[in-house]
Amino acid sequence: MHPLTTALETRNFKLLKSLLTEDVRFTSPVSPTPYQGQQMTIAILTSATELLEGLHDDGEIVTADWHVLRFHARIGEHGLEGCHFLKFSASRQIQEMTTMMRPLPAATAFYEGMEAYRLRLTGEISVHPS
Amino acid sequence: MHPLTTALETRNFKLLKSLLTEDVRFTSPVSPTPYQGQQMTIAILTSATELLEGLHDDGEIVTADWHVLRFHARIGEHGLEGCHFLKFSASRQIQEMTTMMRPLPAATAFYEGMEAYRLRLTGEISVHPS
Repeated sequence: MHPLTTALETRNFKLLKSLLTEDVRFTSPVSPTPYQGQQMTIAILTSATELLEGLHDDGEIVTADWHVLRFHARIGEHGLEGCHFLKFSASRQIQEMTTMMRPLPAATAFYEGMEAYRLRLTGEISVHPS
Repeated sequence: MHPLTTALETRNFKLLKSLLTEDVRFTSPVSPTPYQGQQMTIAILTSATELLEGLHDDGEIVTADWHVLRFHARIGEHGLEGCHFLKFSASRQIQEMTTMMRPLPAATAFYEGMEAYRLRLTGEISVHPS
């Protein structure tokens, strides 16, 4: 597996951090606006590892300019596949990362899970206890 | 632009047909299940051209095994970007096509537009006139 997939699947955050430049720009499958910086990107990817199960590579496509990593995973009852478009820095760390996923029911479940995780983290959900 | 983008943007269905094998397998950004065959794939892509505006290429990534085509477009108020993973037949026609898109609000708008188009085509919407 690619080190990025390994870091996410094994929740190895030290490895994950080592793979990203400090000013990495992460364009998520969900949000229209990119996230900037290592800290924010690690926070988002860490939440994602809470949701995705059985993350595995579906192959890499590598050229001089681009590194495309395809993957599949499960989220709840949904199968999910996705891809990362990666650009590397001179230090061979990830400088730009754009992620897309399909199909829509899985992407929607991913968004809902990320939202629930964010609310749990920020404590906002405690305002509306069940 | 890639011939596929040209065919979709200019709604040139003769060109589109010429680019696809008869038994092309199209895995859409929305539906979990792939579509099989030229006729179904053309029907889906034709509907997509009704919804997407300003379709343009964002570059191609080509290796011996894969052809990845990135694109952007607009759907209503949303900017959208996506990618096609293409596999070609010996006749250089598209044999497999997997499409993903982001961000989620744009993908959701795309799904809703496709559903509305499908209902209009099948006449189901006339059962519930506004």
